Amino acid sequence: MGGRSRNGLRLGMGDDAALWRPRPGFETILTTDWFLEGSHFLRRQHPPDSVGWKCLARAVSDIAAMGGAPRCFLLSLALPGSLAESWLDGFLVGLRRAARSLDCPLAGGDTTRRDEILINVTVIGEARPKDALLRSGAREGDYIYVSGRLGEAELGLRLLRDGRSKSLARSAALRKHLYPAPRLELAAWLAANHKATSLIDISDGLSTDLRRLCDASGVGAYLGEDDIPCVRIPEELAEGIGSPLQLALHGGDDYELLFTAPRGRLPARPWKFRGLRISPIGVIVGGNRIVCYDPNTQSGYELKPGGWDPFRKRAGAPESGDSPKRD
Amino acid sequence: MGGRSRNGLRLGMGDDAALWRPRPGFETILTTDWFLEGSHFLRRQHPPDSVGWKCLARAVSDIAAMGGAPRCFLLSLALPGSLAESWLDGFLVGLRRAARSLDCPLAGGDTTRRDEILINVTVIGEARPKDALLRSGAREGDYIYVSGRLGEAELGLRLLRDGRSKSLARSAALRKHLYPAPRLELAAWLAANHKATSLIDISDGLSTDLRRLCDASGVGAYLGEDDIPCVRIPEELAEGIGSPLQLALHGGDDYELLFTAPRGRLPARPWKFRGLRISPIGVIVGGNRIVCYDPNTQSGYELKPGGWDPFRKRAGAPESGDSPKRD
Repeated sequence: MGGRSRNGLRLGMGDDAALWRPRPGFETILTTDWFLEGSHFLRRQHPPDSVGWKCLARAVSDIAAMGGAPRCFLLSLALPGSLAESWLDGFLVGLRRAARSLDCPLAGGDTTRRDEILINVTVIGEARPKDALLRSGAREGDYIYVSGRLGEAELGLRLLRDGRSKSLARSAALRKHLYPAPRLELAAWLAANHKATSLIDISDGLSTDLRRLCDASGVGAYLGEDDIPCVRIPEELAEGIGSPLQLALHGGDDYELLFTAPRGRLPARPWKFRGLRISPIGVIVGGNRIVCYDPNTQSGYELKPGGWDPFRKRAGAPESGDSPKRD
Repeated sequence: MGGRSRNGLRLGMGDDAALWRPRPGFETILTTDWFLEGSHFLRRQHPPDSVGWKCLARAVSDIAAMGGAPRCFLLSLALPGSLAESWLDGFLVGLRRAARSLDCPLAGGDTTRRDEILINVTVIGEARPKDALLRSGAREGDYIYVSGRLGEAELGLRLLRDGRSKSLARSAALRKHLYPAPRLELAAWLAANHKATSLIDISDGLSTDLRRLCDASGVGAYLGEDDIPCVRIPEELAEGIGSPLQLALHGGDDYELLFTAPRGRLPARPWKFRGLRISPIGVIVGGNRIVCYDPNTQSGYELKPGGWDPFRKRAGAPESGDSPKRD
């Protein structure tokens, strides 16, 4: 899985540790992520190749969220003995496909036996020191942008959980839930061209991740409901799913980018970056409140974090112990 | 825990990822390790500060095993809500103490809720490219050395498991099991002075780790039983513990160093490195067998790996599900 000299990797699996050569003049980006059976995925509902793809893709999304490029990763895997063949084979197919697609070869790891499937992924990335984009750079008056459509992965999760995924096997929503694509190209472009003042990926829902960005920057935000690019829910699936806006505001796992830029630096209307929709959804304001404007009532309401937080019960989430969560 | 600019760490916790500046001209060493309740430690027997110390110390030992120095680490922690206060406090005391002692500040991590305590630690280290010491460099005729006394941590584990630890609270064996010290100074000296041809740390027992070193180097080994520096077992504790030699050959968790050097480069008798005992225990030979000479029978026997391997039942290990294992 990945040649020994790829991406600076001089020595991969097989010794006490891996050896990797950083690019001169670059800063190293370090991120680590749990991906645990029952908490983040379900053994019976999520195909093993999706687990393999997603455990790497979501960690790489944190590299994108810094404006960087992934270089290699470490995998810690604990597995029941009964899964050591068929499940593991499928898992490795998805993992290898993600490693190739994201240009992020396996550098090393740790494996052990365990009753449940436990996964931890560490990704090593790089950015030029002046390019790295933090959560803390948003300033009053900046425009707020998101990539893609929000709530798609949440729709995919709900369909999967309700056993309605077969009819939708090729739907964008299910694909986005099972095989998310970190927005590396957009992030690299924003970073290299110094277009954005702050950047975060939307892993836990817009309401939660915008709160984090505002907290880190010491600012508030004003959003327009009509400006938020929401998932499109086919009519025949709409029952019991919730409104597109609620999915877009609080649904997680989209791994789209949320960023800010000074007025005038980027278009003030929806535009495309290499085919990917980019939408201005509001502006950064003083204070610390996040207010969302509802055109129906012609008034604003405070938007509270409603995405996934492992240390807080999720707003409106079903209490089923069988439900995968994100963090 | 660790200043932001310490050891090249520009940005720690609080953003999507950490930012770290590698030292120009150095290679980066990457290692990741599970430390799981029930598999690697027991919630009731192991004090929380030992869990905090040891999860970092054992991962740092893999950096020592490459001849490198640790720079920073990432912590992934999953914890039951009921332990979020007192257990976590104790854990952090031990972790902070290890981070300071090993000069390895926390760079970031991931936390979530879980019924069992799950820990994964990734350590980032550095070495000069020409200094890094691999498992694969041992050559026929090289002397084989180990640091310290082997089997001490295994003795500590057995006393702890048998509930005999109170009488031994200050014993070296228990201390070594609970608070192992990676041999960073010796490793750095071997690496910087190009003294060793190969290096590995003894985490899973001499018989297992010497097998790994020989496999990586494509060689065999010839050991003398009398030359192996074994744990000293106080007479009043000897009952049911096993022989010092068996503990030294197959006991894990010592985190001593096992290395090879060409004849004449280092002393051929036991010597001290800054107070640490270094013992020549045998020579590298052709073929792939590891033979141990028994002075009583005046004959050699093949030494098979008898240390801990999570994918193989451990030779002679009790089958209690309550027994911590190493890998």
